[in-house]
Amino acid sequence: MVCSVNGDKMNGQIANTVIQVASEPPTIAVSINKNNLTHEYIKKSGVFTASILCQDTPLSFIGNFGFKSGKDINKFEGINYKIGTTGAPVVIDYATAYMEVRVTKEIDVGTHTMFIGELVDADVLTEDVCMTYEYYHQVKRGTTPKSAPSYIAK
Amino acid sequence: MVCSVNGDKMNGQIANTVIQVASEPPTIAVSINKNNLTHEYIKKSGVFTASILCQDTPLSFIGNFGFKSGKDINKFEGINYKIGTTGAPVVIDYATAYMEVRVTKEIDVGTHTMFIGELVDADVLTEDVCMTYEYYHQVKRGTTPKSAPSYIAK
Repeated sequence: MVCSVNGDKMNGQIANTVIQVASEPPTIAVSINKNNLTHEYIKKSGVFTASILCQDTPLSFIGNFGFKSGKDINKFEGINYKIGTTGAPVVIDYATAYMEVRVTKEIDVGTHTMFIGELVDADVLTEDVCMTYEYYHQVKRGTTPKSAPSYIAK
Repeated sequence: MVCSVNGDKMNGQIANTVIQVASEPPTIAVSINKNNLTHEYIKKSGVFTASILCQDTPLSFIGNFGFKSGKDINKFEGINYKIGTTGAPVVIDYATAYMEVRVTKEIDVGTHTMFIGELVDADVLTEDVCMTYEYYHQVKRGTTPKSAPSYIAK
């Protein structure tokens, strides 16, 4: 779950992968679709947070953040979150851990932008098993929206 | 397992994560330590391959590619591989699938370079379960070398 902020507005979306690309300083990267509202917010604020979801996260929760747009609804209604040190929201529900990142590089990769940045805060929240993308597809029977970097046209 | 080529020389190394960062065209990224020989080869040739290892890959196999340097040994001795369409070697042993990538962008991320490129070939080799980084640490009791983007100093 990748979240960002734009003034007094917040948004978040599901990203299938957030990776560490360097260890010193800890550097984190994520690829976000240019059409997504979260993309606009990260570009403007220069910060994002990533909450790692546990294996038991309900599909309805993922659906709210991954298959709807913050242009249409307030995704944070009824969701537990905190405002992080970056000023961006950190989703707490179903999160086993989170990271906060200040963006230092934006890389144009066509349909998406890779946001790369320095880790400024992080914490482990629970010892629950994290959800893998494999588990999401094979056990939860989750699907991939067209905006995902891993989307395959039928 | 990320491999590349430099004239008639080949090298390969373990990378804990290779990610897809855009879907159209399929775009792949990997972060490689600047001190690694594979880094030099990818920079020179502009291509790399990635073989996804199965859960049952022996630690000795990972050790050969992940904890030794191609400056000292020929890592491909006794290993099954093929030369891919990019001209770089594709490791077949313990691989469930592979990708071949032509680099279009190099991003300096401090100790590492992110190589981002277009997928030019790929295939699924077996239906074996892929090894996750979690499984590598928790079940295989594998460790992380200092050169890895996810290294944490003791």
